[in-house]
Amino acid sequence: MTNDLADRVLGGELRALSRTLTMLERGNPEAGGVMKRLDPQTGRSYTVGITGPPGVGKSTLVDRLAEHLRSQGLTVGILAVDPTSPFTGGALLGDRIRMQRHYLDDGVFIRSVATRGQSGGLPRIVKSMVRALDAAGKDVILVETVGVGQTELGIMGVADSVVVAMTPESGDSIQTLKAGVMEIADLYVINKADRDGANQLAGAVTAMLQMADLSGGWNPQVLLTQAYANVGISELWDGIGAHRDFLTDTGGLQARRSERRRSEFLETVQEELHRRLIKRLGEDTKLHTLLENIEGKSAEPYGEAMRLLDDDVDLARVVSGGC
Amino acid sequence: MTNDLADRVLGGELRALSRTLTMLERGNPEAGGVMKRLDPQTGRSYTVGITGPPGVGKSTLVDRLAEHLRSQGLTVGILAVDPTSPFTGGALLGDRIRMQRHYLDDGVFIRSVATRGQSGGLPRIVKSMVRALDAAGKDVILVETVGVGQTELGIMGVADSVVVAMTPESGDSIQTLKAGVMEIADLYVINKADRDGANQLAGAVTAMLQMADLSGGWNPQVLLTQAYANVGISELWDGIGAHRDFLTDTGGLQARRSERRRSEFLETVQEELHRRLIKRLGEDTKLHTLLENIEGKSAEPYGEAMRLLDDDVDLARVVSGGC
Repeated sequence: MTNDLADRVLGGELRALSRTLTMLERGNPEAGGVMKRLDPQTGRSYTVGITGPPGVGKSTLVDRLAEHLRSQGLTVGILAVDPTSPFTGGALLGDRIRMQRHYLDDGVFIRSVATRGQSGGLPRIVKSMVRALDAAGKDVILVETVGVGQTELGIMGVADSVVVAMTPESGDSIQTLKAGVMEIADLYVINKADRDGANQLAGAVTAMLQMADLSGGWNPQVLLTQAYANVGISELWDGIGAHRDFLTDTGGLQARRSERRRSEFLETVQEELHRRLIKRLGEDTKLHTLLENIEGKSAEPYGEAMRLLDDDVDLARVVSGGC
Repeated sequence: MTNDLADRVLGGELRALSRTLTMLERGNPEAGGVMKRLDPQTGRSYTVGITGPPGVGKSTLVDRLAEHLRSQGLTVGILAVDPTSPFTGGALLGDRIRMQRHYLDDGVFIRSVATRGQSGGLPRIVKSMVRALDAAGKDVILVETVGVGQTELGIMGVADSVVVAMTPESGDSIQTLKAGVMEIADLYVINKADRDGANQLAGAVTAMLQMADLSGGWNPQVLLTQAYANVGISELWDGIGAHRDFLTDTGGLQARRSERRRSEFLETVQEELHRRLIKRLGEDTKLHTLLENIEGKSAEPYGEAMRLLDDDVDLARVVSGGC
């Protein structure tokens, strides 16, 4: 059944792809088998990360880029990473609306990914999802994330090219850059470029880039767009293409992708260890008592955590069920 | 030596406190012993989290609040969580400057906490640090974090009261609220309230709160401040006091604090497991070969991660060094 599902994904069947992504999200034990069969067929897609603070028009940018790619005959996969409320657990409505727009076009596959249960950052499962979309034959994969400061750093680990979007009116833009975003962008987009201050912001970003030490590396482009009016979109795609050529020529593309596979493995181990620990805590009386003591102040949290890990027998029992 | 250090922290010696925080940051094996001795003396401080996007004046707000608290004879601990560049690893300069300002006042203890090595969110060690400050006798602990969307959710797990700061000109503010911040705030502060649109934004936030279902719970306050001009600071502290009274009366304070201890334990286990895994990977030839195969596409990342965890013997060896 696993092989059958994988073969249908490889054949480009969208329902099979969708089901595979759900299996990954839920930690379905069969997901590993599917991914193993898909993996040899990966490596042909190009992955673009698009990030920036809320309100800069990322969704419109992604939509317009998808339209542009479709007009060139390329197939597109979109992973929209949604910040979700820890209370409702639901994704934002936006993507439902967008879904409808591309409904009749089989060449665009859109999937919302909730960040449920993680305190910011990119869900680790996104790396696995990108590989599934890759195997399903999408030419370009667009990963859209919201963030500011450190939040978008995760996008570096997922995308071949990273686009950071800003607007002239978000007065925070330069502060955002300073907060560590500068190093992650391969291209800067000043969206809503018809508004006051767009050229000024573009100049400020360019000046910051000139001050930075980029010796021997890629010199990030700064582009002006008006996504809503479809202005600057083909130039953006050309800019991404230039970065892609640079990466290919310098061997950077291969390096990024190897590193991505490595971190996918490590992050999956970490996440799954945590999931098993939580599950075990629910079942194990001794640990249950320890947690109650910690809550009730008769045991100290930090020291008890270290003690648990220093005790091999206990640890093995906690995470794997006995050894 | 551990007991001696703990006793000096309990005696309010700032150098000893500083050293304890460094031990926690570095995962010093003796930190557990110190924390165990400090723990019974915790529970007297009140912890306030202050968060919001960059540029809203959080640092000024925190400084003014600290001054106000000092004028009332209260001692203050400040943990400023700095987004750091993954490349330079350094903290922002701001706090160094602030340090100097409060230099001569022993009643204010300021510490920068780098988010190094974590993709956004609050460093897990902050919960332990708050307990150390608590044991050192700080009356009020202010935890300042930058963030938007999901990033600040971590602050909920650390603070007794959460203040979300905004400004009229950050057009993103309402979008930010929608992105899940709304549920975390116990108080809203519209800072730079002398600028255009402040009352409008306050009205919009109030309207959103009225639409939300807050039945039976705390009704978040919306306050206007001009931190730079010291306007609205004592009202902010009064608002925090009202929330504290609410939590105390309803038993919510105890519940928040028990949950905080529980999650500190679980997060410390998770983080330390990860640290040991990474260490082990550097030493273990078999795992080293597996990682190379994963990078080179002769092994698949997701499935191999699951396989490693399903194999008890391997896992125990990886994380604890043999069983």
